[in-house]
Amino acid sequence: MNLKPWLEEIVSGIEPVPEELLEEAQRRLDNLTKPKGSLGYLEELGKRFVSIRRNLEERVKEKNVLVFACDHGVTEEGVSAFPKEVTQQMVLNFLRGGAGINVISRFVGAKVKVVDIGVDADLSHLESQGLIIRKIDYGTQNIAKGPAMTEEQALSAIKAGFELAKECFDKGCNLIAVGEMGIGNTTPSSAIYAVITGKPVEEVTGKGTGIDDEALKRKREVVKRAIEVNNPNPEDPIDVLHKLGGFEIAGMLGVMIAGAYFHVPVVVDGFISTASAVLAYKLNPVIKDYLIFAHKSEAYGHTKALEYLRATPLLDLKLRLGEGTGAVLGMCLVELGEKILHEMATFDTASVSKGKEV
Amino acid sequence: MNLKPWLEEIVSGIEPVPEELLEEAQRRLDNLTKPKGSLGYLEELGKRFVSIRRNLEERVKEKNVLVFACDHGVTEEGVSAFPKEVTQQMVLNFLRGGAGINVISRFVGAKVKVVDIGVDADLSHLESQGLIIRKIDYGTQNIAKGPAMTEEQALSAIKAGFELAKECFDKGCNLIAVGEMGIGNTTPSSAIYAVITGKPVEEVTGKGTGIDDEALKRKREVVKRAIEVNNPNPEDPIDVLHKLGGFEIAGMLGVMIAGAYFHVPVVVDGFISTASAVLAYKLNPVIKDYLIFAHKSEAYGHTKALEYLRATPLLDLKLRLGEGTGAVLGMCLVELGEKILHEMATFDTASVSKGKEV
Repeated sequence: MNLKPWLEEIVSGIEPVPEELLEEAQRRLDNLTKPKGSLGYLEELGKRFVSIRRNLEERVKEKNVLVFACDHGVTEEGVSAFPKEVTQQMVLNFLRGGAGINVISRFVGAKVKVVDIGVDADLSHLESQGLIIRKIDYGTQNIAKGPAMTEEQALSAIKAGFELAKECFDKGCNLIAVGEMGIGNTTPSSAIYAVITGKPVEEVTGKGTGIDDEALKRKREVVKRAIEVNNPNPEDPIDVLHKLGGFEIAGMLGVMIAGAYFHVPVVVDGFISTASAVLAYKLNPVIKDYLIFAHKSEAYGHTKALEYLRATPLLDLKLRLGEGTGAVLGMCLVELGEKILHEMATFDTASVSKGKEV
Repeated sequence: MNLKPWLEEIVSGIEPVPEELLEEAQRRLDNLTKPKGSLGYLEELGKRFVSIRRNLEERVKEKNVLVFACDHGVTEEGVSAFPKEVTQQMVLNFLRGGAGINVISRFVGAKVKVVDIGVDADLSHLESQGLIIRKIDYGTQNIAKGPAMTEEQALSAIKAGFELAKECFDKGCNLIAVGEMGIGNTTPSSAIYAVITGKPVEEVTGKGTGIDDEALKRKREVVKRAIEVNNPNPEDPIDVLHKLGGFEIAGMLGVMIAGAYFHVPVVVDGFISTASAVLAYKLNPVIKDYLIFAHKSEAYGHTKALEYLRATPLLDLKLRLGEGTGAVLGMCLVELGEKILHEMATFDTASVSKGKEV
């Protein structure tokens, strides 16, 4: 089945966040007992949340984070400090609740949903422990030698992300975050950054989880070779994705499209998920209205992609773990912004004198 | 009673955070299932929390924020966009739970304790609603004309803050934040910044809650006049405090001293509480080891004080409300850091392969 018409229909059906709702929310914020704008980004987040949801009274109900796990053929080029097996070991760690994403999600009250979208191992026995199996393949192909996946696989992975997000929304989730686990996945992300933003490979390719200088040199050569060998069309994000991407990047892109289509804010994490955001923006710039960029990652090159998107990250906590850890913190701030908007007293109800602010 | 010997004894009894505890906590962090250091500031916060508490197993139990409210004689110079009455109106708003600090504290599970340390009104009828009365006086004197308070009053306000913090600690609070409400209080804060850091008045005096250009010019002249008229000794923080300060600045300084003395981290908020931190640092630089700087305020000049303290703020959410709003968010991050340290799986227990990070 050709999924291209499906994707085109969905993407062209995405509408901007209504300006009049944003303005109405702003008026409410300006009547709360505080100097205008003095709660900074928190005010902005509350406003965007209700406006995206098309309902000024909307409260944050359920927060989910979809963590997409998969493997990358390019790890055979020695681009990562960790062995490939860590992907599946970490999936088990996620299911047992011992990873960073679990600790942070428990703390902020978000539900972690782990998806095998392409781990290079049969994990079907983990379904009973909560793993969601939407495997596209047993890892991608080595992008240094040819395309990561077929176009059909890329579209299937997007659709998987889209459908999983829709399932979350149908069950009451109205704020969603994306995360990932995939040893080697900064390499395809850097390749996507380079092609879409037009920046030199050196500016968007760093040390990932911690390789040495020699390995970094090799990694940059691998990214260059991947772009040369595959020669993707920078104007066609699906071409770039299937040639250079990863299944998790496609899955997260599907979640972003679903958020924009169904009016649910999608909180973006760090280096890898921003590659999905760059592709989403290229598909339809309006999708960006529905994305919240949680943090500036310590991963070298992330800033370049944020600049390309003209996106302002909320946090700069020097995180570079991935898994959705930064995004879940971002959801926490969105929820707080919503509470500011709905729970603070107004000047009138609290009998507080207004100032003469300029 | 002369409180100077009391203060000197307390301040000289403050000891640095033990290096060996910080190192042991770091070793634990490096064995958790994540690339080393990849949770950035969260790791640092977990490490500092347990080390300050002198107990690697310590969990965050109760979080308190002490909000000191008082008035400032200097408001008669027209330095604020809001009328002076707003201080007491906001105290009522705090007690009813409608202010920004209430919404944020409920969200992160912190208890708000509101202190009348010098509001220019009799608020004794509010004690039954939870207001803590430790009034030093009915507002300070106008610093543009003479000292804000007597040295004795300054020391009494410090002692009030110290004792209130100790009461919190005795009741199980092991993480504390400071906040304030006092129309006009950016003016004394700017004056303190200028004297202690030696920066020009223009660099540390901004528009506060939102005055216009003309009022800003006047405010800067007021700060200069206050320094000229009072001629404080920059090497004597108590001299600077009583001549230029406010009762809330003294109270928060007392909390900082108590935190350092009793080994409880104190989370600093924005522009005003950083004036207390600057004084604390001048009293004994070791106190800084116990302070956590929650955020970079949008208030103009805050960065200069942070630079003087060589302090790295955790957040930059463009907040400029005060009340302790940023500090309470900082407590939330400290608690999360503690959970990272204690709840994440290790490479061994989770059977995850270690990387070859550099």
